[in-house]
Amino acid sequence: LLTSSVAASSHCTTNRGPTVRNISDALQSNFGRRGLSHITIAGALSHGLKEVEVWLQTFSPGSRTPIHRHSCEEVFIILKGKGTLLLASSTFNYPGKPKEFPIYTNATFTIPVNDPHQIWNTSENEDLQLLAIISRPPVKIFIYDDWDMPHTAAKLNLPFISDEWYMPHSAAKLKFPFDWDEECYHQPKDEL
Amino acid sequence: LLTSSVAASSHCTTNRGPTVRNISDALQSNFGRRGLSHITIAGALSHGLKEVEVWLQTFSPGSRTPIHRHSCEEVFIILKGKGTLLLASSTFNYPGKPKEFPIYTNATFTIPVNDPHQIWNTSENEDLQLLAIISRPPVKIFIYDDWDMPHTAAKLNLPFISDEWYMPHSAAKLKFPFDWDEECYHQPKDEL
Ligand SMILES: [Zn+2]
Ligand SMILES: [Zn+2]
Repeated sequence: LLTSSVAASSHCTTNRGPTVRNISDALQSNFGRRGLSHITIAGALSHGLKEVEVWLQTFSPGSRTPIHRHSCEEVFIILKGKGTLLLASSTFNYPGKPKEFPIYTNATFTIPVNDPHQIWNTSENEDLQLLAIISRPPVKIFIYDDWDMPHTAAKLNLPFISDEWYMPHSAAKLKFPFDWDEECYHQPKDEL
Repeated sequence: LLTSSVAASSHCTTNRGPTVRNISDALQSNFGRRGLSHITIAGALSHGLKEVEVWLQTFSPGSRTPIHRHSCEEVFIILKGKGTLLLASSTFNYPGKPKEFPIYTNATFTIPVNDPHQIWNTSENEDLQLLAIISRPPVKIFIYDDWDMPHTAAKLNLPFISDEWYMPHSAAKLKFPFDWDEECYHQPKDEL
């Protein structure tokens, strides 16, 4: 009886693992994107967080994120390397020509809610390593083919695997779609 | 007319400063606590964030936070140094004897909502430097004199200066209370 009531009450919880964890021991994934290494330092699926999620991402020389937007707040801290932030606006029907900002070790910046953006590692030989902090996990990401695509045409990238705690080490084994229980999460407002 | 309408609409906003900022240029404060250096990397008051806030804090050898709790989620990343996390529970009427966890460079941990906690730099000669990420700024911190103080007796530490962007470089000039506009923030549920 005790066992089944525990099981029932933990329907929407996960094993948070040890209280203090070594980031160096965390599993990495690339979500099928060459040049990306992703670690969820603290997340919804792995550690039961509801309000924030913290990622450590490494981009190999020349690699980049897709052009995308999301309705959560996002803070970046550049730990290593350099590159470019491309940032457009959600004001008009499509992003349009983005503003370009150099990013560098020790730089920080915040992406305004729903503004389309992209991060490039423009270096030819150095990795770009950063911390990304998002609110209200799990993030729902809308992806643009280019800066002229209407906001309403951007494609929902679901399920986004915001947690590699369950992921195999090798990207080759990565399987989509990954199961999660949608009922266990807040429903953010994602549409523009 | 334009000027006054801009002023009116910005009643609850702040100058976010440049899009990409160098953390090395950020102002530091110690909020009157010897041994603490605090930088708000991204925050409510300085950068208009509503859902997350990111701090960079450095504790000199032997220094520590007060025993405290808050209703927001908090994620720590230890960048440098070592020390001890003391973590108690909100289950009973008072914290009681906390669990102790060694913390170290590259460690990460999450403080469950409302659980009383304290972080010590136990080193005799090395700084402890960490990133702290909180949800729903500005945080309202309740402080305990000791681990046997009832939760209901813990004192609200207000106003907590969660943003030193407006602060003088030298702690000697730091002034309490610091004005902010309470109406501009969400009202989190802070009481146990
Ligand atoms: Zn993003
Ligand atoms: Zn805390």
